Amino acid sequence: MASFGDRLIERTRALGHPLCVGLDPYLDRIPSLFRRGAMHPQHPDTAEAVKEFCCGVIDVIASDVAVVKPQAALFECLGWRGWQALARVIVHAHAADLLVLLDAKRGDIADTASAYAQAYLSQGSECGVDAITVNPYLGPESVAPFIIEAEKAERGVVVLVRNSNADSSIYQTVETSTGPYFAVVATSLAKWQDRLAGAKTGWSSLGVTVAATHSEDTERIRMVLPRALFLVLGYGAQGASAREAVRGFPRGPAGLEGGIVNSSRPILFPTTNSEARAAIWEQEVRGALVRATNELGEAVV
Amino acid sequence: MASFGDRLIERTRALGHPLCVGLDPYLDRIPSLFRRGAMHPQHPDTAEAVKEFCCGVIDVIASDVAVVKPQAALFECLGWRGWQALARVIVHAHAADLLVLLDAKRGDIADTASAYAQAYLSQGSECGVDAITVNPYLGPESVAPFIIEAEKAERGVVVLVRNSNADSSIYQTVETSTGPYFAVVATSLAKWQDRLAGAKTGWSSLGVTVAATHSEDTERIRMVLPRALFLVLGYGAQGASAREAVRGFPRGPAGLEGGIVNSSRPILFPTTNSEARAAIWEQEVRGALVRATNELGEAVV
Repeated sequence: MASFGDRLIERTRALGHPLCVGLDPYLDRIPSLFRRGAMHPQHPDTAEAVKEFCCGVIDVIASDVAVVKPQAALFECLGWRGWQALARVIVHAHAADLLVLLDAKRGDIADTASAYAQAYLSQGSECGVDAITVNPYLGPESVAPFIIEAEKAERGVVVLVRNSNADSSIYQTVETSTGPYFAVVATSLAKWQDRLAGAKTGWSSLGVTVAATHSEDTERIRMVLPRALFLVLGYGAQGASAREAVRGFPRGPAGLEGGIVNSSRPILFPTTNSEARAAIWEQEVRGALVRATNELGEAVV
Repeated sequence: MASFGDRLIERTRALGHPLCVGLDPYLDRIPSLFRRGAMHPQHPDTAEAVKEFCCGVIDVIASDVAVVKPQAALFECLGWRGWQALARVIVHAHAADLLVLLDAKRGDIADTASAYAQAYLSQGSECGVDAITVNPYLGPESVAPFIIEAEKAERGVVVLVRNSNADSSIYQTVETSTGPYFAVVATSLAKWQDRLAGAKTGWSSLGVTVAATHSEDTERIRMVLPRALFLVLGYGAQGASAREAVRGFPRGPAGLEGGIVNSSRPILFPTTNSEARAAIWEQEVRGALVRATNELGEAVV
């Protein structure tokens, strides 16, 4: 098997766009088509509806994207049945030949971080995915257990560096003697970028988050981490354009490359009142998907 | 019901010490007494053994401590059965009249952070606890959904500010124009401290982590957050003394107060080869507990 970075980049090259679809099954927005009575976190049927919705989305998008990004919080809030649902969604995505990046933003130290890493990155684990998002606040070495597990299993680690919500700037852009705080974090990750270097495409299986809404910061991060994958946040719903989203993507054999651009709600919930019939819902999701892939495809040419 | 801060401080006053016992059920260290065959994350019996071990520890310590801190990662790595085990451990701890602080270090933004907050802090949720640890890297507003839920349900939020692992200093003590980075984070939390102010003891239901191993930083955080609870890390296993652990605790009606001091492995795994008989195991855990409570009790006099 190839490394996560190689597998991801080979697929985005083949598809001609870097779209990643975020699977954020907000209970109050799931179409009536998938609902089962009153949706409530503690109701046993709710996790089943969430699973059906996510699998339905996967069926519509699978042949046109490289990767999906389930949001752990929205399964976790359903209790143990939510974890069963997440495991099934992961299996369904893998069966459809999609890569799965779990957005769990875990972070801890030493053996505890290893437990998180094993839960999601080790071979044979119940919710085993291709890559996971990791929060670095506890220090660069707190990322190490995830890197070790990713290296063993040829999977990936995406570290939060720069985020797209306005408020994240308060902590992430604080000026230090060596530049803004996010650059301090990015610089300390360089060794992991090299450790997870890919053999085929030249891209690492270390990823970092960057914000399409702060694309000048993206360029700074690219200088520090030339071969790290970018998980680009803030495209679409948060107002950034496709061109802003691919800033920091250098030119590869098939166009600009080097990461993925996430879109969640615009694809999952393209209108507020679709639903009544499956065919109409599918058509709406597909329409939203085609708009995003066309837009991003043009931006990377 | 009183606020989390009031409930916690009233109990530590009554007990005369601030010990919190961390429930970190590392599979390879669980005594043979509780084991069920080969312990493996994917084996169905393993979660049951983890539950039995944690409930066994709770039975031994319940009358002598105010609060336990289960480590989410060590349940999560067991899959959905791990979540069922965690839910049962929480119920068992509550039945024994213990407060439960879940060490989950979650952090996300907006509706996603709300989903995490509801999963752990809302009334009636499957893994509902008295307080949860939160990672602030995505900005001060990323903490807000946890505060809102805590306020509704009279529960608490403990934000990672300063950690005890050596490596955390690399990010947390970076110098900025307004002081070290952890002080920037602490300062921005002051409004949440005030919002979760308690009515009885004067202590807030906002907590922050501080490191007994960096006790000079603790005093700086106390100046910025005079009424925040401290979750003190690094006592015992990481080498800090009881006196270092309670630095930043001002004098209250029953001695120094204002937080809790965590100890996990020294209490849970007091020797490497106990086990064969329940009576011996209990005696060893109780012995380790008494040493810690005596030491901390003397430090707060």
